[in-house]
Amino acid sequence: MNGQAVGVIGLGAMGGGMARSLRRAGHEVHVYDVRPEVAAAFAEEGGTAHGSAAPLARHCQVVVSVVVNAAQTEAVLFGEQGCAAAMSAGSVFVMCSTVDPLWSAAMEARLEALGLLYVDAPISGGAARAAAGEITMMTAARPQAYAKCEALFDAMAARVYKLGDRAGAGSKVKIINQLLAGVHIAAAAEAMALGLREGVDPAALYDVITHSAGNSWMFENRMAHVLAADYTPLSSVDIFVKDLGLVLDMARASKFPLPLSATAHQMFMQASTAGHAAEDDSAVIKIFPGIQLPGAQS
Amino acid sequence: MNGQAVGVIGLGAMGGGMARSLRRAGHEVHVYDVRPEVAAAFAEEGGTAHGSAAPLARHCQVVVSVVVNAAQTEAVLFGEQGCAAAMSAGSVFVMCSTVDPLWSAAMEARLEALGLLYVDAPISGGAARAAAGEITMMTAARPQAYAKCEALFDAMAARVYKLGDRAGAGSKVKIINQLLAGVHIAAAAEAMALGLREGVDPAALYDVITHSAGNSWMFENRMAHVLAADYTPLSSVDIFVKDLGLVLDMARASKFPLPLSATAHQMFMQASTAGHAAEDDSAVIKIFPGIQLPGAQS
Repeated sequence: MNGQAVGVIGLGAMGGGMARSLRRAGHEVHVYDVRPEVAAAFAEEGGTAHGSAAPLARHCQVVVSVVVNAAQTEAVLFGEQGCAAAMSAGSVFVMCSTVDPLWSAAMEARLEALGLLYVDAPISGGAARAAAGEITMMTAARPQAYAKCEALFDAMAARVYKLGDRAGAGSKVKIINQLLAGVHIAAAAEAMALGLREGVDPAALYDVITHSAGNSWMFENRMAHVLAADYTPLSSVDIFVKDLGLVLDMARASKFPLPLSATAHQMFMQASTAGHAAEDDSAVIKIFPGIQLPGAQS
Repeated sequence: MNGQAVGVIGLGAMGGGMARSLRRAGHEVHVYDVRPEVAAAFAEEGGTAHGSAAPLARHCQVVVSVVVNAAQTEAVLFGEQGCAAAMSAGSVFVMCSTVDPLWSAAMEARLEALGLLYVDAPISGGAARAAAGEITMMTAARPQAYAKCEALFDAMAARVYKLGDRAGAGSKVKIINQLLAGVHIAAAAEAMALGLREGVDPAALYDVITHSAGNSWMFENRMAHVLAADYTPLSSVDIFVKDLGLVLDMARASKFPLPLSATAHQMFMQASTAGHAAEDDSAVIKIFPGIQLPGAQS
């Protein structure tokens, strides 16, 4: 079934690349973004832009939502000109945001009551892999929901993990990934800061660590930003204020202790309130006193 | 200069492999271990065993010390039948333990006062890479000390980082590696524990994380032990009680805050005192209540 009609809502760093990957695979792509000029630019390349979520939904059996959080997802579905009321019975809403798993499970039930299917489908991989059709999707859904999405997932993703037959497990695994990502960024910052404090050459430290057992995906990726003194946000400090907050909320619901996540969350909040909220998340290193970062004026 | 005479003191998981790698490269290897049977077994393969450090030192221009910590290193050098008094002027002591950088710098000065050279040379890589002659060495030393060790380092190591022209920077970088290694093991345990608490399949979680941005070298390595329910110590909980203690001591000397290291240190101390001191360091996951680990009786 090539040429499936699919909607993509939210053309940010991830959604834009996913929409282009879908079109490249031969699908009929309808898009909506709160920034009309972004949707219009996409339409010039060959898709169809809509001025709100509702008319988009009338053209598509599958709607992929790639917005920032649960509140934006609710607005997409149930806000003014939202898509829920416009979707035909049996069509599928694919929820790609990082959200509370309980919220995701409740949303599945709410849409099922309207005759709609739902995929709990948080994503990772970054903008480059989204553009290449190579994201990772951490999913959980009813089999009948998966059945309508297979060709679309193939077009967008290099890996589609199917973690359960109803919503929740996809969001849980995504949140646990964010736990590790957040702690590792903060730990990378703590390690690099200690090296600077001790007068170790930061480039040499980076070289050793990235070839040693102390390495992490995040150390290797984010400390390159620190060495280059480039805090242009690929993902911002406030994303981890939010995501580690979701981690702690999930665990608090069952009174489960997370000592490192709680500490890392405090570090990102300190960075945010100190003025670095919208900088790259590697700017969490700026909370450390008594050091001179690469590129800083002495 | 093939066939250099070299001493190796301490034939544990690392030292044993390093001594074999030296012999395989054609060097004349003298060994000493506090366990005479271990040194004797090595000698049967072709090296020369000694009953203490002093006689070993009389045969070698370079002595490589691969013991557990600073106290054992001091005993090797200055204890009864220690090697310092037996080493000839201009010979080199290669210190491979993880130690306080200030202690290492002081040891260089103390040996220089005796006419001896010193290499600050902490190592990493594990037993398999030691046996293959492929460890990583994080070194700092005088050029004249390096000059006498080049062929030996080539035989033992895949990578030799030269981080300074006097002792200290090698130990600093090693300690920063241990900061990350310790925090990453504790974070891996925290993430896996949360997954178990939330009812996520642990093997699926491992698969997703090891292919995602939340991955670390330690998550991938140590959580395999947890999935296999195998806490046979490759490196024990108490090694990280010690090493994160060194991390915190180094930073305390300049009043530098390390929130994540301090938290992870508490986690390893909790695991140690709860009865898991000598288990594999991945047993830090046993501090988390309210979960059933893979392999545990329900």
